[in-house]
Amino acid sequence: MTLMTPEQYMESIKKDINLYMFGEKIKEFWNHPIIIPTINSTKKSYELAQNPEHQDLMLVKSHITGETINRFCHIHHSIEDLIKKVQMQRLMGQNTGCCFARCPGMDAANSLYSVTYDIDKKYGSNYHERFKKYWTEVQQQDLCVDGAMTDPKGDRSKRPKEQTDPDLFLHIIEENNDGIVVRGAKIHQTGFLNSHRVLVMPTITMRPGEEEYAVCFGIDTNAKGLTLIYGRQPCDTRKLEETKLDVGNPKYGMHEIFVIFEDVFIPNENIFMKGEIDYSGEIVQRFAGFHRQSYGGCKSGVGDTLIGATALIAEYNGIERASHVRDKLVEMIHLNETLYSCGIACSALGFQREAGNYEEEMLLANVCKLNVTRFPYDIARLAEDIAGGIIMTLPSAADFQSDEIGPLLKKYLATCEGMSVEERYKVLRFIENLTYGQTGVSFKGESLHGAGSPQAQRIMIARQANFNNKKDYVKKILDIE
Amino acid sequence: MTLMTPEQYMESIKKDINLYMFGEKIKEFWNHPIIIPTINSTKKSYELAQNPEHQDLMLVKSHITGETINRFCHIHHSIEDLIKKVQMQRLMGQNTGCCFARCPGMDAANSLYSVTYDIDKKYGSNYHERFKKYWTEVQQQDLCVDGAMTDPKGDRSKRPKEQTDPDLFLHIIEENNDGIVVRGAKIHQTGFLNSHRVLVMPTITMRPGEEEYAVCFGIDTNAKGLTLIYGRQPCDTRKLEETKLDVGNPKYGMHEIFVIFEDVFIPNENIFMKGEIDYSGEIVQRFAGFHRQSYGGCKSGVGDTLIGATALIAEYNGIERASHVRDKLVEMIHLNETLYSCGIACSALGFQREAGNYEEEMLLANVCKLNVTRFPYDIARLAEDIAGGIIMTLPSAADFQSDEIGPLLKKYLATCEGMSVEERYKVLRFIENLTYGQTGVSFKGESLHGAGSPQAQRIMIARQANFNNKKDYVKKILDIE
Amino acid sequence: MTLMTPEQYMESIKKDINLYMFGEKIKEFWNHPIIIPTINSTKKSYELAQNPEHQDLMLVKSHITGETINRFCHIHHSIEDLIKKVQMQRLMGQNTGCCFARCPGMDAANSLYSVTYDIDKKYGSNYHERFKKYWTEVQQQDLCVDGAMTDPKGDRSKRPKEQTDPDLFLHIIEENNDGIVVRGAKIHQTGFLNSHRVLVMPTITMRPGEEEYAVCFGIDTNAKGLTLIYGRQPCDTRKLEETKLDVGNPKYGMHEIFVIFEDVFIPNENIFMKGEIDYSGEIVQRFAGFHRQSYGGCKSGVGDTLIGATALIAEYNGIERASHVRDKLVEMIHLNETLYSCGIACSALGFQREAGNYEEEMLLANVCKLNVTRFPYDIARLAEDIAGGIIMTLPSAADFQSDEIGPLLKKYLATCEGMSVEERYKVLRFIENLTYGQTGVSFKGESLHGAGSPQAQRIMIARQANFNNKKDYVKKILDIE
Amino acid sequence: MTLMTPEQYMESIKKDINLYMFGEKIKEFWNHPIIIPTINSTKKSYELAQNPEHQDLMLVKSHITGETINRFCHIHHSIEDLIKKVQMQRLMGQNTGCCFARCPGMDAANSLYSVTYDIDKKYGSNYHERFKKYWTEVQQQDLCVDGAMTDPKGDRSKRPKEQTDPDLFLHIIEENNDGIVVRGAKIHQTGFLNSHRVLVMPTITMRPGEEEYAVCFGIDTNAKGLTLIYGRQPCDTRKLEETKLDVGNPKYGMHEIFVIFEDVFIPNENIFMKGEIDYSGEIVQRFAGFHRQSYGGCKSGVGDTLIGATALIAEYNGIERASHVRDKLVEMIHLNETLYSCGIACSALGFQREAGNYEEEMLLANVCKLNVTRFPYDIARLAEDIAGGIIMTLPSAADFQSDEIGPLLKKYLATCEGMSVEERYKVLRFIENLTYGQTGVSFKGESLHGAGSPQAQRIMIARQANFNNKKDYVKKILDIE
Repeated sequence: MTLMTPEQYMESIKKDINLYMFGEKIKEFWNHPIIIPTINSTKKSYELAQNPEHQDLMLVKSHITGETINRFCHIHHSIEDLIKKVQMQRLMGQNTGCCFARCPGMDAANSLYSVTYDIDKKYGSNYHERFKKYWTEVQQQDLCVDGAMTDPKGDRSKRPKEQTDPDLFLHIIEENNDGIVVRGAKIHQTGFLNSHRVLVMPTITMRPGEEEYAVCFGIDTNAKGLTLIYGRQPCDTRKLEETKLDVGNPKYGMHEIFVIFEDVFIPNENIFMKGEIDYSGEIVQRFAGFHRQSYGGCKSGVGDTLIGATALIAEYNGIERASHVRDKLVEMIHLNETLYSCGIACSALGFQREAGNYEEEMLLANVCKLNVTRFPYDIARLAEDIAGGIIMTLPSAADFQSDEIGPLLKKYLATCEGMSVEERYKVLRFIENLTYGQTGVSFKGESLHGAGSPQAQRIMIARQANFNNKKDYVKKILDIE
Repeated sequence: MTLMTPEQYMESIKKDINLYMFGEKIKEFWNHPIIIPTINSTKKSYELAQNPEHQDLMLVKSHITGETINRFCHIHHSIEDLIKKVQMQRLMGQNTGCCFARCPGMDAANSLYSVTYDIDKKYGSNYHERFKKYWTEVQQQDLCVDGAMTDPKGDRSKRPKEQTDPDLFLHIIEENNDGIVVRGAKIHQTGFLNSHRVLVMPTITMRPGEEEYAVCFGIDTNAKGLTLIYGRQPCDTRKLEETKLDVGNPKYGMHEIFVIFEDVFIPNENIFMKGEIDYSGEIVQRFAGFHRQSYGGCKSGVGDTLIGATALIAEYNGIERASHVRDKLVEMIHLNETLYSCGIACSALGFQREAGNYEEEMLLANVCKLNVTRFPYDIARLAEDIAGGIIMTLPSAADFQSDEIGPLLKKYLATCEGMSVEERYKVLRFIENLTYGQTGVSFKGESLHGAGSPQAQRIMIARQANFNNKKDYVKKILDIE
Repeated sequence: MTLMTPEQYMESIKKDINLYMFGEKIKEFWNHPIIIPTINSTKKSYELAQNPEHQDLMLVKSHITGETINRFCHIHHSIEDLIKKVQMQRLMGQNTGCCFARCPGMDAANSLYSVTYDIDKKYGSNYHERFKKYWTEVQQQDLCVDGAMTDPKGDRSKRPKEQTDPDLFLHIIEENNDGIVVRGAKIHQTGFLNSHRVLVMPTITMRPGEEEYAVCFGIDTNAKGLTLIYGRQPCDTRKLEETKLDVGNPKYGMHEIFVIFEDVFIPNENIFMKGEIDYSGEIVQRFAGFHRQSYGGCKSGVGDTLIGATALIAEYNGIERASHVRDKLVEMIHLNETLYSCGIACSALGFQREAGNYEEEMLLANVCKLNVTRFPYDIARLAEDIAGGIIMTLPSAADFQSDEIGPLLKKYLATCEGMSVEERYKVLRFIENLTYGQTGVSFKGESLHGAGSPQAQRIMIARQANFNNKKDYVKKILDIE
Repeated sequence: MTLMTPEQYMESIKKDINLYMFGEKIKEFWNHPIIIPTINSTKKSYELAQNPEHQDLMLVKSHITGETINRFCHIHHSIEDLIKKVQMQRLMGQNTGCCFARCPGMDAANSLYSVTYDIDKKYGSNYHERFKKYWTEVQQQDLCVDGAMTDPKGDRSKRPKEQTDPDLFLHIIEENNDGIVVRGAKIHQTGFLNSHRVLVMPTITMRPGEEEYAVCFGIDTNAKGLTLIYGRQPCDTRKLEETKLDVGNPKYGMHEIFVIFEDVFIPNENIFMKGEIDYSGEIVQRFAGFHRQSYGGCKSGVGDTLIGATALIAEYNGIERASHVRDKLVEMIHLNETLYSCGIACSALGFQREAGNYEEEMLLANVCKLNVTRFPYDIARLAEDIAGGIIMTLPSAADFQSDEIGPLLKKYLATCEGMSVEERYKVLRFIENLTYGQTGVSFKGESLHGAGSPQAQRIMIARQANFNNKKDYVKKILDIE
């Protein structure tokens, strides 16, 4: 079986894990009302894969096994693959209105596929075959995999070993013939609970003397020694309320986990880098490159839902044809499609690595992500503008549905003839959620910091931009030198 | 007594009102944990007035009684008054980190003061004296007054009487010798519960045939016939949680009330306009003008706290001197001070009305507010940028304080030597709150829509800008005509 | 011969034309110092085609004749063709630092190729074969072709026939068995003098009753009845000065011609539309689509030279590593690559027309152009910022080279040790030229208005954006309807 | 006589100076067609002072002599003075459509007035009285004074004495009982030829060991040892053409002079600082502060003419009421008035120096100027947008006026009924000039770099912003420490 049904997926994640939320240990997280919608988002990737209408995007033939697999498990092997990856992500965003968290593992795998090859070539190691075997299992079992990169980092002005606590960057604390023992933490782990496995990578380029920090491995999300703490999100507890109307997006969402590694043993067969500091940066950059490409797809997909909701509210309020409203909707489209364009462009100009897989064009992937750190904020502001102050002042669903006060509220929330007040209520909450609530964090905050904060992209752009070439164009025109 | 102490103020608002929240009737709202911080914000205006250090801004001599009053009760009578008003608002914003809701009534009173004068002059009515008497009571009792303008408005493409339900704009439904009866609703009522009285104004310029909608009056906030419904805000229920750490700003906040007028009787002495449609637009414009001026003060005050919190986080993370962080902090200051500059400028160029009071320069007040609809969003994005992804993924205070999981979390949230992890936690929540939480709604959403949405300012700017003058400058230079 | 050498091209344009400049009739325009650099720009397309290093981009096999042709004469027949078109344009921009004007005819031909096919299909006419024959000659002779669209348009609030003068839109004024006679004007004709032929198209969608305005044809640029008036550009007469140092870009430039059609006869074989009003808009849109795609290439190419010049000046001034300079250079790259990304993306997602040729994705092409109307202005401002006030205050080349005053000037224009003052002078003039001079018009003004002003793109974006689809995503998530 | 008439002013500047332009020595510069319009701009300050309608702004009573003087000669002595200064500058901008260059000396004098006082207080020197005497002459003779600050600076990464050539910063090379001899250059000297005198100041804060560079003095603009080289501007030579129609702004303009000091003797009575390095930075900062305030006035005045011209073109083209045109005009107003607001605000919050004079608020003055480095560019882009491509492609005035070709051109440049084609022509050239021509340099480039480039303002903003205060607000709210 290389494709799980949504139902099989749901069963597959029911594992005993060491998870805390609100200071309490959580049992059967898959039944927790705060967590359920976040699982639904990832589940959507299994659902759409069953839908013939979307299989052109969702399915692909594995270059390893030749079997048809979910594209989220694929090692891209053509320009077309790279483009369809982005389009699949946009489709997922359109169907969930939020992050769906199946990309980090895909992007990590595509990075590791070529980096392990390159390490082996230089050092004669055997990481690539090891990783290929590991990933073949992922493809054959249609697993969801997380990619874990961000360490807590402590004092940002200091190197890992200069920290007061050496564990502020994850590192090897012990080693024997069978494997290694690691300690540290990986934070901001989007969709960790929805994943079967996680690929753990270093967070920065390591330097000589920091070999114990240059470590990369695969591990199950329920591995012994892991402690998971569920991150809060704005309005999270609305999901615990009786009615789900105020959740905004009652079906989908995403979570972030703070993952602590307390002396976790990693067997040799799951280790994909151990001390090769000269390749630690390569893992980071290639992963970041793929992940920055991803954002051109997923965020424009979520953008589509916010634009749709805004257009709906304009329609409900009778202002859809007002010139200034029309103009703002056009601006939202323009910004959103610019994001998508950058995702497509870095794919279309991708190239083949020596390992055989295809990688997006690095400069444009960084340009893509840098736009993603800006435009969703503008799109969100325009949505708030058109939707009106009511998204910030709307009484609760309990008021709306109360026998006593509900009718009065509905009387005064009515707009155009024939409009449903309840639908207007729902769409307003959807917009509130995407601007100030849970999915807003996903649409804005994650756009800002996911796959690296803006400054990380600027540094990469500076490196990739060939200023000397540009100087040469001018010198040639001006007969200089 | 023309100055209440904070304690007297607290006593003074304990009145029986018809308030609903989460579908339930609320008794003793002043004890409700969701509401308390919002009362604190208004209370701060009484508190600072007692502080000699701030009395130059907070106190002023009444032009009516000659007594020293809180500036929030003042009818401005000089340029200096106008400037100090803005500075008082900035001070309040700096001390609360959110909206404090004592401005709408002040701004409404300053509008009505001159409009009633002008109506009387044209129609020989007696509104001005009536209003002066009403407002003298406010000054003498140091009352907090709300200003209520926004109607639900239904289908925005239709006039009040064309609506399916004529009550979608508040109007007179009955009239007798003693007064009038009104029906309708006023929404987005910021700080209504903290106010003793409310000045109710029309929401748009009324036209012939719409006289019943051209109505303006004063009323107590606990008047018979009023139904109040408390508006939801992101993260509101965090205030119900055991620990207040996750509230972000545990001391201050602001609420929005949906106020319904069911056949409310208004005695003649509290009526300040009744059918004078040609002055309905004047009330709106002058109120909006004063209120748009206000935003140059209050929002830059809140901006100061967000900039401060961001600088603190940068310090905690060891990156305060990084050039890109420094540059972003400078940009935040620049934007924030531009807002303030516009508030000061429209004050400095104010003028005297025939009634004797001073009004800000209208064009620049609209320019001020239009900047306020933009820059807080940019400031907030920069804050999120510097603060990092952790503001979106931080586990709960319950986790942070749990015996079991807390120590682990604290270990990995530590940054620079000597920094307090708990303080870092607090500041991160403060920033989260100002960007995605309750005060974020106040800093961003209210900046966008309060005192009119951006398009309202654009319309006023178009009207105030003298294009013909500008054309004439060019014609003169070019010898045209 | 399907490829002309640069020398053959130079000979080929030496034709008797009816051209005026500064009120004088110009003979042998190819020897005029103001015009020479503008011819050089187009000539570069012949030059690069001879260079093996660039032939992958510059050459392609004709789908009509199977012969190798210059890509500027190509009817695109694959996604790869569309992408390489954009890359060829970037290459040209990098090599000229300005507009090179061989795109309009290419873009017009690609529009007409499919529109004539569609007209024939509906009306049984024979335009497509006629056009194919016409274009085969272009390919076989390696001609440069202009595309002429913009009419003077008179009072923009009126339709063609409502104008005081019906000639303000070009129209058919006579018709017989052999052909038609047209009258009117086409303005903003970039590179008209460098072109052998011109494809004339309608400027807007025509309506019933406006058939005489729905006309499209090919004509030689030296046809009888044409009057050409050379457009002024800032600093144009610097090219008449003794030294060329102040020209900024002494080798390349571009011109704009005001072309008047006084009763010009068009034989039937060169007519590609005559009265088919329902396809007049199609010609406009498809041409505009191709041309908006083009701008993603050419303008980012010019952008490269401006970035290069700015980096050079920073180097000359010893500030290339200053953090704020570095940051601005990165921003310039970011904006420039965003333009390119949009050009690539609309190409990568192109589609095949029924006629067999490939067309770019229309929505993204408009998004591309809308960014082009903004970012070059930002890039130019950043260039001015880094280059410093000296680009506006630099004395003339005559001063610089004078025996008397030159040495003093050079003494004080010296910067870092080892830098050549003369090179600094040249690069400063190059930047001045791209921001305030001739090529600035090409980099900024043409970016703004070429292929349609911003509002034209906004209208197309509104049409192409499927708001209903976006509403449906939300409805599905919210179970609406 | 404390007020010169315009005619007297014209006579007063006819002095023998050592000026070069285009490599030639210029005699009687006041008759040179390139220079005349630039003199007109300054002359306007004498003209408006004679106009009763404007004397409230243009005239003021000297605090030294008690006589009525031109405000450009005033040492500001109240908040009202500071505000009226900005309003006078806006008036001048509206009347000239460009820079008028009488501000630098006014701003320098207001800086020196208090700095000399402070130096004397610390060192017991006598600079203040000396300066007061010097400036009393200026007031009594109604002189125009330049303020010269910018040195060539060579390698920006090095200090003055580290330069290959020590003269790249102006310095004292000799000293005796009667005075000093200086060598160096001051560049970007706006309006130098229109000025009778110039106040020369250091360009940066000097450090110990750099005393010879910490020098400040007054000098006549025709002093012995000065060599002046006239800076080129885009389209400068259009003023030499037969018709003045293509100049754009045929009456007004401004020049920039490269001024070289070859061993110039300065008598003691004109020296206002000599080696007091600890006050060199104060001169720079206070001058820059006043000058950054100025830009809020003059540039918004020029902005008014560009907005007026754009509105005129929209009217001529029949699109003034189109919603997108209206919206862009509103945006132009908004940006322009934001500039003005900042100029007014820093004035309204000014303070008194110990010397008795008033100075603007420094933080807001820097905020003002930083906005000035941005918004004129946006305003200019919007002007180009509305005006259309024709501003870049319009044939020459010689064509327009030619008997042969003129009528054809006029036929096709006609727009709305009743509009004058010639007026349209003039206004288009006016806009071209303000975006790409001479006055464009003044509206954009000078806005960017005059009174210091953007980074200079950012550094000052960082210094003036009290981050600790802002942190304290947050700490107080969060009970930190």
